[in-house]
Amino acid sequence: MNGRDQPIGIFDSGMGGLTVLRALEARLPSERYLYLGDTARLPYGTKSPDTVRRYAIQASHTLIDRGVKLIVIACNTASVALPALMEALAPVPVIGVIEPGAAAAREAAPSGPIAVIATEGTVKGGAYVQAIQAAGAIPVVQQACPLFVPLAEEGLVEGPIAEAIVHRYLDPVMATVPKPRCLLLGCTHYPVLSNLIARTAGKDVALVDSAATTAEAVAALLATHDLERNGAAGGARFFATDSPDRFARLGEIFLGRAIDPGTVDLVDLGA
Amino acid sequence: MNGRDQPIGIFDSGMGGLTVLRALEARLPSERYLYLGDTARLPYGTKSPDTVRRYAIQASHTLIDRGVKLIVIACNTASVALPALMEALAPVPVIGVIEPGAAAAREAAPSGPIAVIATEGTVKGGAYVQAIQAAGAIPVVQQACPLFVPLAEEGLVEGPIAEAIVHRYLDPVMATVPKPRCLLLGCTHYPVLSNLIARTAGKDVALVDSAATTAEAVAALLATHDLERNGAAGGARFFATDSPDRFARLGEIFLGRAIDPGTVDLVDLGA
Repeated sequence: MNGRDQPIGIFDSGMGGLTVLRALEARLPSERYLYLGDTARLPYGTKSPDTVRRYAIQASHTLIDRGVKLIVIACNTASVALPALMEALAPVPVIGVIEPGAAAAREAAPSGPIAVIATEGTVKGGAYVQAIQAAGAIPVVQQACPLFVPLAEEGLVEGPIAEAIVHRYLDPVMATVPKPRCLLLGCTHYPVLSNLIARTAGKDVALVDSAATTAEAVAALLATHDLERNGAAGGARFFATDSPDRFARLGEIFLGRAIDPGTVDLVDLGA
Repeated sequence: MNGRDQPIGIFDSGMGGLTVLRALEARLPSERYLYLGDTARLPYGTKSPDTVRRYAIQASHTLIDRGVKLIVIACNTASVALPALMEALAPVPVIGVIEPGAAAAREAAPSGPIAVIATEGTVKGGAYVQAIQAAGAIPVVQQACPLFVPLAEEGLVEGPIAEAIVHRYLDPVMATVPKPRCLLLGCTHYPVLSNLIARTAGKDVALVDSAATTAEAVAALLATHDLERNGAAGGARFFATDSPDRFARLGEIFLGRAIDPGTVDLVDLGA
C-alpha cells in the first residue's frame, strides 16, 4: 500500500465528527476513511485542556498505528490541542476544524460581526475568536449552547422543544448591535440542527458549518502532499471506545446514511 | 482515628450524587463525608457495564485509600456494579441507591404499577425492575429521559422548555393502563426537577426519590456496624477528576448549598 491508498483518519470525542466524515465522503468519494469516536469518555466539551490534549494524542496514535496518511481532528474541543498534536504526530499531517471554519466565516462576513455558537469548553477556550481575529480585528460574539448536543443525540431536531431551545440561545446573540452577519456552527453536532438554526437566525445571516469547509481544506492538503487516492469508491470503517452498537444506531443521524454494525469495532485507548 | 470518626465515601460519575449527599447531611449531620465525582469521564449512562464497573472500582479504591468507613455508590448507573464492588471492596461496606429506592417504591405502591424514570443505561440494565420485582410480581414500566441530565446541569428546572421536555417523557408513561401509582426517580440528577415532575405526574402519584431513601439505609447500616459518629457537625470534602472549579460552581444546584472551591481537589484515578 503506497501513501495514496492509505486511509484518512478522523477523530472525534463521539459521533458529532460524523458530520465531517459526511462532508468528506461527498467531497472526496474515492478516499478510504478510518473514524475513531471516543464514546467511552465523551463529552469533551466540559473537560480541561490538559485532559482533552492527552485523550486526543492517545486516539491519534491509535489511528497512526493503523496506517492513516492524514488525521482530521473533527472535534472542536480537541482542536484546541492542534499545535501539540501536530508536534506529537509529525510527520503525519494533522488538520482541525477551527481554522477552516474561521476562514469561511471571515469570507462570509469580512467586516463582521461574526457570531460563534459552540460548547462551553470551546467558547471558554476562545479558539474561534483567536482564529478569526488573527487576520484582523473583526468583531466576534460567542454563545455556549450546552443543550444542542443532547438535542442532536436525541434526534430532536425539529418541533416545539427544539425550537424553544434554539431561540433560548440564539435570540440574545442575534439581538446584539450591530447584528451578526455570519453565524458559525462551532460544534460538529450542530449541522443536524442547521435547518432550524438557519430559520431562527433569519435569512440575512450567512450560516457557516465547519464540516464542509474542513472537507475543502483536506482536499487541498492532500493535493499539496500528493496523497490523493484515485479510482474506485473508498468506504469507511469505524472504531468506538464504548458501545459500538449504539454508535452504529445513533451515528446515522450525523452521517446521513446507515452504518453497518459490522463496520464498527470496539477499541481500547489504554488509559 | 477510630472507625466511628472515619468519613463516609460517596461516589458518583459527576455531580448528580450530590443530591444523595444533601439527603445524608440532613439525616446524619454529625458525619464527615468524602465525595468523589468522576467528572472527567461522565456521563456513565451511555457506557457499557464493563466500563462502568472498572471505573467504579477505581474510584472506590481511591476513597478507601483515604480511609472511608463505608461507601455509597450514589450513581444509579454504577449501582449495576454493586455485587462486584461489594466483593472487591470487602470488608468496607458498600451501599447503592437501587435497593433503597426500589424498597420505598414497593412501600408506596404495594400492588403497583410503578413507573421508573432513569438514564438510558439504567433502563436498559433493568436493575430497578429486578429489585422491585424480587419481592413479588409487581407491574413496572420504565422510561429513559436522556434530556433530564443536561436540563438539570443547565439549571433549567422550571419554565416552558423544562415543562415541554418533562411532558415529552412523562405523558406516555402516565397514559399507560392501569396508570402508575408511584413514580420512582431512578437517577440522582432528577430530584432537582422533582417539583416539575410531581406537578406533571399529578397529585395521585407518589414520588419516590432514591436520595432520601438511601440516606435512611445508610443510617441503618451504620447502626448495624456500630459506626455512627457522635458529637459536632461533620462536614464534607470533594474530589473531582476534572475541572474542580466547575464542580464547585455547578454542584450547588444539586447539593442545595454553596460549595467552597477550596474544599474541592483534583484527583487522578490513574486509568
